[in-house]
Amino acid sequence: MKLLKDTLSRIEKVDGSLGAETQKRLDNLTKPQGSLGRLEDFAAQIVEITRHQNPQLKNKVIFTFAADHGVTQEGVSAFPKEVTPQMVYNFLRGGAGINVLARHVGARVVIADLGVAVDLDAHPQLLIKKVGYGSENMARAHAMTREKAVESIENGIAIFEQEFKKGIDIAATGEMGIGNTTAASAITVVVTGCDVEKATGKGTGIDGKTLEKKITVIKKAINLNKPDPKDGIDVLMKVGGYEIGGLTGVILAASARRVPIVIDGFISSAAALIAVAIEPKSKDYMIASHCSVEPGHKIVWEYLGLTPILDLNMRLGEGTGAALAMGIVEAGTKILNEMATFEAAGVSEKN
Amino acid sequence: MKLLKDTLSRIEKVDGSLGAETQKRLDNLTKPQGSLGRLEDFAAQIVEITRHQNPQLKNKVIFTFAADHGVTQEGVSAFPKEVTPQMVYNFLRGGAGINVLARHVGARVVIADLGVAVDLDAHPQLLIKKVGYGSENMARAHAMTREKAVESIENGIAIFEQEFKKGIDIAATGEMGIGNTTAASAITVVVTGCDVEKATGKGTGIDGKTLEKKITVIKKAINLNKPDPKDGIDVLMKVGGYEIGGLTGVILAASARRVPIVIDGFISSAAALIAVAIEPKSKDYMIASHCSVEPGHKIVWEYLGLTPILDLNMRLGEGTGAALAMGIVEAGTKILNEMATFEAAGVSEKN
Repeated sequence: MKLLKDTLSRIEKVDGSLGAETQKRLDNLTKPQGSLGRLEDFAAQIVEITRHQNPQLKNKVIFTFAADHGVTQEGVSAFPKEVTPQMVYNFLRGGAGINVLARHVGARVVIADLGVAVDLDAHPQLLIKKVGYGSENMARAHAMTREKAVESIENGIAIFEQEFKKGIDIAATGEMGIGNTTAASAITVVVTGCDVEKATGKGTGIDGKTLEKKITVIKKAINLNKPDPKDGIDVLMKVGGYEIGGLTGVILAASARRVPIVIDGFISSAAALIAVAIEPKSKDYMIASHCSVEPGHKIVWEYLGLTPILDLNMRLGEGTGAALAMGIVEAGTKILNEMATFEAAGVSEKN
Repeated sequence: MKLLKDTLSRIEKVDGSLGAETQKRLDNLTKPQGSLGRLEDFAAQIVEITRHQNPQLKNKVIFTFAADHGVTQEGVSAFPKEVTPQMVYNFLRGGAGINVLARHVGARVVIADLGVAVDLDAHPQLLIKKVGYGSENMARAHAMTREKAVESIENGIAIFEQEFKKGIDIAATGEMGIGNTTAASAITVVVTGCDVEKATGKGTGIDGKTLEKKITVIKKAINLNKPDPKDGIDVLMKVGGYEIGGLTGVILAASARRVPIVIDGFISSAAALIAVAIEPKSKDYMIASHCSVEPGHKIVWEYLGLTPILDLNMRLGEGTGAALAMGIVEAGTKILNEMATFEAAGVSEKN
C-alpha cells in the first residue's frame, strides 16, 4: 500500500498556467490561427502536462499487460483462454498487431504478465509480475482480494518506474486477456451507472446468444459482489482483472511523473475509470486514443469528458489504437517545435 | 490535350478481384477477424489499387501546388494575396505546417508554382509550371480560358510523371492560394448542386460580414459563368484555379499509374470533384484524408461516397491532413505485411 499511497501523493492537478503563452506561440506560427485544430490542442496539452515549452515525444512506451479471467468459465468469450499466453509469446516474437503499429510510430512495447493462468517461459523482454494465476470467476466470487487488487496496481507502478528510468516522454496502455471485455463492461456499468446492455459488446466476436449470456453473467457478478463505485479498489477487486489493475498503476504512476498517458481501447479505458475513481486528478494526464467498436467505450469517454482522436472501427486492444494516436499527438508537438513564425518566415499576417 | 487524353485512356476501373484473397489473408493474422477495422480496409484497398499483394508505401509524395486567384479583388479573404508567394518560400525553407507533417510521416513534398501572381525566385526544389499570373476574377469573367484549364491539368500530369520516375508508392494533394476556398466552394456548388450557403465557410478566418460577401460573390460568379457540372474542364475554367487544375492532373495521373492518391482538404477535394467529372473511374484511386472545418468538405465527401480517415478540426490545407492520413494508411499495409498468422504464431483460433 505504501507505493500506491506515495504515488497518489505526488499527483498534481494540471493547472493550465502555461495555456495562454502556448496559444500565443501557436498563433505566431505561419498558419491561420487555430487552423491545425486538435493538433494545436495536443501540443498545448503536452506543454501543460510536461511543463516543457518544447516537449519532445521521442521516448514512446506502450505498456501491454496480460492476465487471465476466471469468468471465462462462464463461456463468455469467442476464443479459448489458451490464447492469452499464446499471444504473449506472439508479442515477444514481434508478430502481433501492437508490435507492427508500435514499430510504425517508433514506440517500444513493455510486455508484462500480471496474472496469466500458466507459467510463461522466461524471455529477456518479458516482465513477470504475476499477482495470481488468473482472477477468480466474478460470477461466483470477488475477482480478487483487496490485497491482490492493490498488489496489481503497485506492480503496474513498479513496472512504470523501472521503465521511467530508461526515459519515457509519453506512455500508453495496452492489454491482452481472454475474457477481459466482460470485466471492462462490468467496471463501466458500476462506475458510470449505465445499463449492462449498453456497455456490453461482442468482444473478440461472440454470437448473439453468447452476448446474452455475457450480459446475464455481468448482471449476476454485479448483484453478487456489489462493488462500491466510489471506491476504485473495491471495483477492481470485485469485477476487475490483474492486467486492469496493472494498467491502473501505470496511469497513476504516469500522472505522478507528469507523463502524458494515452489510453487505448475499452479495457484500458476501464482501467482509466478505476484510476479516476482512486485519484480524479489523474484524468488531466489522459489522452483518449480512439473510439472502439465496443459500445461501452463511448460511454467511458463521455463519462470522463475525453474526446477520442481516432475512430477507425478498431477493437483489438493490445495498445494498437494508442500507438496510432501517439503518432498524431507527436505530430502536434512537432508543429509547436518546428514551424516557422510569421516574422521569421517574412509572411504577412491577417488583414 | 494529347497528354490529358493519353492519361485518361490509361485509367482502369479498380475491379475488386483481389478482395476475397486479401480478406482471407487478413483473417489469418493473429487478431479477431476484422478487429483492426479500417486499417484492414486500407490494406485491402491498396492491394486492389496497386495489384501488389504486399504493397510497401515507402515512397510517399505530397504535391503542394500554389496559385493566385483574381477573385481576391472582391475582398473575400482574410489574408493579403502576397501571402501566396511568401508561403511558397516558407515551404522551400521547410518551415510550414506541411513540411513538419511530411517529415513526421516520412513523405517528400513537391512544390510547384502553377500560377502565382508574381515571378518566384528560382530554387532547386521549386518547379515553375506557371499557367498564368493568377486566375481572372470569376465574379467578372471566366477564371481562365479552356486552353489554360487544360494546360493546368497537363502541367499537373507532367509534374506527377516526372516524380513518378523517382518512385511513388502513394501520393497526396496539397495547395496554397489566397482566395482558393472561394473557388472550391463554387466548384462544390456547381458539381454537387448544393446551396452556396452550405458550401461556403470562413476559409483562413474571415468575419461574418466578409462571409456574406463571399457567398454573394460565389453566387454572382456561378450566375455569370454558368459552368456545366457535367464538363469538369468547363467547371475548372469558369470558377476554378490553376493549382486546382494542377491537382486534378495529379489525381488523374496517379489513377493512370495505379498509385493511391490521398485527397487533402476542401480545395483538394474540389480538384477531386473535377477529376471525377472528367473520368469517374479516378474515384477508385482516391482516399479521403480528413474532414475539414470548412462546411463544404463534408458535402464533397458525401457526394463522392468517401469516408474521411481523420476528423481533427483542421483547415490549413497544404497537404497537412493528407500527410497524417498517409501515415495511417501505411500502418494498414504494414498490418498485412508484418503480422504473424495464427499458424505461424501457434495461436489457437476462434472456438
